[in-house]
Amino acid sequence: MTDLDATCVNTLRFLSVDAVEKAKSGHPGLPLGAAPMAYVLWDRFLRHNPANPQWPNRDRFVLSAGHGSALLYALLHVTGYDLPMEELQRFRQWGSRTPGHPEYGLTPGVEATTGPLGQGFGMGVGMAIAERHLASTYNGEHVPLVDHYTYGIVSDGDLMEGMASEAASLAGTLGLGKLIYLYDDNHISLEGPTHWAFTEDVAGRFTAYGWQVLRVPDGNDLTAIEAALREAQAEKARPSLIAVRTHIGYGSPVQDTREAHGEPLGPVNLRATKEKLGWPLEPTFLVPEEARAHFHQAVERGARWQKEWEDLREAFRTRDPQRVRAFEDQLAGVLPAGWDSDLPVFRPGDGPMATRDASQKVLNALAPKLLALLGGAADLSPSTKTLIPGSTDESATDGSGRNFHFGVREHAMVAVVNGMALHGGLLPYGATFLTFSDYARGGLRLAALQQTHAIFVFTHDSIGMGEDGPTHQPVEHLVSLRAIPGFTVIRPADANETSAAWRLALERPGPSALVFTRQKLPILDPSAHPIATGTPHGGYVLSEVPSGKPEVILLATGSEVPLVLEAQEQLKQRGIRARVVSFPSWEVFDEQPAAYRDSILLPGVPKVSVEAGVTLGWARYVGSDGESIGIDRFGASAPGPVVQRELGLTVGHVLESVARVMRAASRKGAP
Amino acid sequence: MTDLDATCVNTLRFLSVDAVEKAKSGHPGLPLGAAPMAYVLWDRFLRHNPANPQWPNRDRFVLSAGHGSALLYALLHVTGYDLPMEELQRFRQWGSRTPGHPEYGLTPGVEATTGPLGQGFGMGVGMAIAERHLASTYNGEHVPLVDHYTYGIVSDGDLMEGMASEAASLAGTLGLGKLIYLYDDNHISLEGPTHWAFTEDVAGRFTAYGWQVLRVPDGNDLTAIEAALREAQAEKARPSLIAVRTHIGYGSPVQDTREAHGEPLGPVNLRATKEKLGWPLEPTFLVPEEARAHFHQAVERGARWQKEWEDLREAFRTRDPQRVRAFEDQLAGVLPAGWDSDLPVFRPGDGPMATRDASQKVLNALAPKLLALLGGAADLSPSTKTLIPGSTDESATDGSGRNFHFGVREHAMVAVVNGMALHGGLLPYGATFLTFSDYARGGLRLAALQQTHAIFVFTHDSIGMGEDGPTHQPVEHLVSLRAIPGFTVIRPADANETSAAWRLALERPGPSALVFTRQKLPILDPSAHPIATGTPHGGYVLSEVPSGKPEVILLATGSEVPLVLEAQEQLKQRGIRARVVSFPSWEVFDEQPAAYRDSILLPGVPKVSVEAGVTLGWARYVGSDGESIGIDRFGASAPGPVVQRELGLTVGHVLESVARVMRAASRKGAP
Repeated sequence: MTDLDATCVNTLRFLSVDAVEKAKSGHPGLPLGAAPMAYVLWDRFLRHNPANPQWPNRDRFVLSAGHGSALLYALLHVTGYDLPMEELQRFRQWGSRTPGHPEYGLTPGVEATTGPLGQGFGMGVGMAIAERHLASTYNGEHVPLVDHYTYGIVSDGDLMEGMASEAASLAGTLGLGKLIYLYDDNHISLEGPTHWAFTEDVAGRFTAYGWQVLRVPDGNDLTAIEAALREAQAEKARPSLIAVRTHIGYGSPVQDTREAHGEPLGPVNLRATKEKLGWPLEPTFLVPEEARAHFHQAVERGARWQKEWEDLREAFRTRDPQRVRAFEDQLAGVLPAGWDSDLPVFRPGDGPMATRDASQKVLNALAPKLLALLGGAADLSPSTKTLIPGSTDESATDGSGRNFHFGVREHAMVAVVNGMALHGGLLPYGATFLTFSDYARGGLRLAALQQTHAIFVFTHDSIGMGEDGPTHQPVEHLVSLRAIPGFTVIRPADANETSAAWRLALERPGPSALVFTRQKLPILDPSAHPIATGTPHGGYVLSEVPSGKPEVILLATGSEVPLVLEAQEQLKQRGIRARVVSFPSWEVFDEQPAAYRDSILLPGVPKVSVEAGVTLGWARYVGSDGESIGIDRFGASAPGPVVQRELGLTVGHVLESVARVMRAASRKGAP
Repeated sequence: MTDLDATCVNTLRFLSVDAVEKAKSGHPGLPLGAAPMAYVLWDRFLRHNPANPQWPNRDRFVLSAGHGSALLYALLHVTGYDLPMEELQRFRQWGSRTPGHPEYGLTPGVEATTGPLGQGFGMGVGMAIAERHLASTYNGEHVPLVDHYTYGIVSDGDLMEGMASEAASLAGTLGLGKLIYLYDDNHISLEGPTHWAFTEDVAGRFTAYGWQVLRVPDGNDLTAIEAALREAQAEKARPSLIAVRTHIGYGSPVQDTREAHGEPLGPVNLRATKEKLGWPLEPTFLVPEEARAHFHQAVERGARWQKEWEDLREAFRTRDPQRVRAFEDQLAGVLPAGWDSDLPVFRPGDGPMATRDASQKVLNALAPKLLALLGGAADLSPSTKTLIPGSTDESATDGSGRNFHFGVREHAMVAVVNGMALHGGLLPYGATFLTFSDYARGGLRLAALQQTHAIFVFTHDSIGMGEDGPTHQPVEHLVSLRAIPGFTVIRPADANETSAAWRLALERPGPSALVFTRQKLPILDPSAHPIATGTPHGGYVLSEVPSGKPEVILLATGSEVPLVLEAQEQLKQRGIRARVVSFPSWEVFDEQPAAYRDSILLPGVPKVSVEAGVTLGWARYVGSDGESIGIDRFGASAPGPVVQRELGLTVGHVLESVARVMRAASRKGAP
C-alpha cells in the first residue's frame, strides 16, 4: 500500500467513525474493516459521475450492509457528490441527508435504501438483470449503449438472510456475469462470532448456486482486492462473490469483537484507534489535502466517461435514431403516446371472467405498447396469468426476455423487481398468490419506502379461491398491505375495473398491488356504470338509487361488489333505496378532496361494508353506526361458493346488517 | 419390489388420485411420484402409534410439500389412524378432516400445518431441536426417554424458499443428526421444468450447510430408498437430505409435466394411469385386502413401541422419580406451581426503564421456574434482551442449551419456534426487532393458524428507537400483526405491564407477540395504578378522573401512555376531566364482555387515541367522532425524542385533539 493509498483508506475510516462518534450513534465496525475494499472499488473500478448521479450508464453500487452507511457517505463526499462535509457532521440527525441507513432519493449517489439485511443483495441482482436486459434490447453491434457493472458490499448478515439466498440462486441461474459482490467476511455479527450460528461453507454454497467465488485472505491487501475484482470482471457467465477476510473495527481496541459493530467507539477507543493507525487526533473529519485531491479525480474521470458515452450514443443515433429514441423514452420512464389505445373494454357477454383472466387480457394489450413492462411470477404464472405473450423467457442465454421465472422465491422476486425499477428504464412486475405476499413483506415495505414504480400482482385473493384451504386463503392481507405507508392496494370488482386498476398502477408513482380473483365474476355493463371514470377516484358510486337520497350505502371491493349489487336489488324490491359504492382502493380514495369523499359516503347515511377479509379498518369508512361484514377468522378448505356461504358472505347477511344500521340511524334521527 | 410392496405403493397412489378426482381439485402429481418413498418410510422406519397420535416418543413426520396432502391422508387411513374412508372421500369438502393442505389439530396424525412452501422444512428443524433438547435434558444413561427421528418429504419448491435455506443452514450448524428429509426431486415445479429457475447444485449447497447428502437415482427403487434411510440414520452428527429422483405424475400420460402438478388427472388420464400401473379401474378408493392387512400392522407395532417405551419410563421412574415427573410435567405443558412467585414488581424508583430491559428482568425470574422456556434471537439478543442467564448456548455439541443463536434468519427462527412448540414439552420464544417481523410473517401466520403456544418478542417498537431511521422504525407493524386472526399482540406501557404481558402470553393458548421499547419509560407506581389487575383485560382504566364522569377518554399503548398521562395532568389544570385507558392488547380487550368494554370506553364520551404507529384500526375504538394520533408515514433518522416531536407525538397535539373532539361532542349534545 502506498502512503497515498493508506491515507485515502484512513480518510474513509475516520470520516466514518468521526461521524458515528459525533452522532453518538451508528456502526463504526464495518467502515474500519471494509474501507480498503471500498477504496479499491471506488478508486480503481467504479465508473460513475459524481456530478451526475443519474448518468444512465454508471456502474451501480449497493451497500447491502446498510448499517455501514457512514462509509458510503464518506465515499460520496470525497469523490465529489453533492454531499458537503456539514452533512457528514449531521449524521443521523433530523433533516440531514446522512440518515442512519442509506435512503434512496434522499442522498445523491445512494442507489438503494438498505439496512434490512439481504435487501441490497436482492436489489443488486435486479439492477444487474436490468442492465443485461436493456443491453440485450438496445445495444448495437460494438455499440455498448448499456454496459455497466453492479457492485455491492455484503455482510455475514446479508448472507444468512434467506431472501439473499433466493436472490443468489436466481442470479446463478440467470448467469449474471456483471454482478460482483464483495463479501465483508469479518467473522462477527451482532451477537458475537459468526460460528455460533453460521458454520456453513459460504464459498461452497455460492459455488453450488453457480457463482464464481474468489478469496482475498487479507482485507488490507489492496493489490489482492484489485486482482480479485479484475478476475471477477473477466468472468462473463457467472456472478462473482469475493470473500474478503476483514476485521471488524480494524485498528481499534475492540477489533474482532461484537462491541465494534453497532455503537460509537467512545473517546478513549477512538483515540487509541487513531493512534494505532497513525492518524491525527485532531481535527476530526480530517480529509488530508493529498487524499482530497486524489479522490476528487473521480469528478474529472466521471465527466470524461459520461462524455465518451454521450459521443457513442450520438454516433449511434446517426445510424439508428429510432433505437436511440426508444431507449431514451424508456429510460425517461414516461408512458409512450398511445400506450393505452388497445386496452380492452369488456362487455357483460364476455363474462363471467376472473379478474386474473381479465388482467391477462389487459397485459396482452399493454405489452406490445409498453416495452418497459416485464416481469413474472414466483413459480405461479399459469395461475397468476402474468405471462407476456410472444416474448421469450429471461434466461442465462437470453437477456432480452420479458418473462421471468423467479422460482418459488417471493421475497427475492420483490427485491429483484425493486432493483429493476431502481435501475431505471424498466417497469417491472412480480406476481404470486395474495397469501404469499407475507413472504415478501420486507421487500414490499422497501418498495414503498423507496417509492419504486413497481407493480405487484396478487391473485387468489380471498376465501373464494376455495379448496386449497386456509393456508392459501388470504384474510388479513388486504388490510396489512393497506397499512404500509405509500403503498397502493387496488382490488377491482370486474374486468373493466381490472383494466382501470392497471391504468392506475401505471400512471401513479410508487408501488401498487393489483389484487385479483381466481374465481369468475360477472362483468358489469361499462355503459351503465361509471367504471372508467370512477375507478381512478379509488371509490365511486357504481350504482345509484333511482331517485331521492340513499337511505343506506353499501360499500364493497372486488368479488363482493356483485354481492352488494344483488343486495341493492333485493332492497329495492322492499322499497329501500341503497347506493352501491365500489371501493377498489382506500389509498386512492383517501387522496381525493373531502368534498368528493363526502359526496360518495354521504355523512350521516348509514353504511355497510362487505369484503372477504378481516373487517379491521373499515370502521373508518362505515363509522361507529355502520357495520362491516367480513371474515374475522381463518378460512376453510371447500369449494369457494361453499366457503363464502358458510363464512357469511351472503346477501341475507347484508340485508340483516342493513336493517340494523337503518334502525339505529332512525332512532338517532338520521335521514 | 415384491408384489405386496407394489400393491401397497399403488394403494397409496390411487387412494390419493381418486380423492383428487372425486374432489375435482388437488394435486395428483406428488402422490404418484413420491408414494414409494413414503411407503418405505412409513412401512419400515416410522415409529408411531396410530391409536395414539400423541405418544410423546413417536417419530415426527412432516409433509413439507403440503400440496401432496392426499398422500398423507392415504397413509394415515391405511395405517389405522382415526381417519375413515369417508374422510378420504370428502377430500377438500366443507367440514371434512381432509382439507386441501394438512392442518394440525384437525386431522389425527398431522404434525404440522403445511402448504406454504418451506414452512414444513423449518418446523421439522424445530421438532428435531426439541427432540435433542429434551433428550439432552431428561434421558438417563442408557435410558432413551426421548429418542426419535424427525422425517420429512420436501419438494423443489421447499428448497427454493429462502426460509428453508435459513433453516437448513441452522440445522447444519446445530448438527441435527436425527433430522432426515426425503427430497422429492422430480425436476418439475408449477410453471414447468425446474431448470428454468433452479439450476443450482442442491447437493453441493446442502453439503456446504453441513448436511449429509444421499442420492437415490430411481424413486421406485424401494431397496435403494431403504438403504439411504439406513445410511441417514447411521449419520449421527449431521442432518441428512436424501435426493430421490422421482417423476411427477408417475405412470400417467402427463408424467414429467407441470400438468400433473395441481389439477385432477381427469377421467381419461386417470383411467390410462390405472391401466399403465396395472390397477383395477373400479372400485375407486380401492384398498386390496393384502395391502390393508400389511399396512395395518402399524397398529400392533405402534402399540408395542409405546408399551416398550412406557416400560422403560416406568423403570426409570423407580430410579429417578423426580426426573420422570419433571419430564411429564413439562410435556403436559402446564405452568408448574409457583412459576410466577419470583416475578418482579417494579417501583417508580427502579426506572426509567425500557420495556425490553424490564422484559429481561422478567425472563430472569421466569427461567429458573419454567424449564420449558427457551429461545433466542435472530442475531439480536444483546438488543432484544432475551438471553436466559445461567444457561448454555444450544450448539452442535450442547443440546441442552436454552439460549439459541438463530442467526440473521427471522423467518426460519419463527418456523423453528413453531416446530419446537408443535413437538411438545417446550415453550419457545423467538426475538427480533418489530420491523423485522415482516421477514417472518409467513411463519407468524402459521403460528396463529396452528395456535402454537409460542412467544415472539419484538423490540425497538416505534420511531422512538431513533437514529437507525425508517428502515428500522416500525409504523405499520402493530396493526398488521393485529390483523392476523388468533394472534395476540401485547404492547405494555411500563415495566409492570411488561411483567403482566409475559404472564398473559404464558397463560393464554396460541401465539403472542410481546412488543417492547428500546427507549426508557417511566415506571408507574403499581400501588396507585391497577396494572396487575387491568392488563389481563387488554385495556383498562389506568388513571381515572378524581371525581365525576370523564369528559374525554385518552387511549394509548406502550410508550405513548406516559404522554397521555401528561396530557391528563395538563387537562386537569384546565379543569377538564380526562380518563386514561392503557390499552396493551386489542385482541384481549375484544374478548371481554361488552359490559366491561363499555365500562372502559363509555360510549358517547369523546375519545382520542395515541400510538406511535399508523392510525389504521383505531377508529373502531375512538368512534367516528374521536381522533387518532399516530404516524401515518414512514419515520426518519434522528434521535428518538426528536423524531417523536417532529412527527407529532406531543402533549400539545393531544390537547388540540381533545379540544376538537370535545367541541364536536358538545355540539352533538353528548355529555
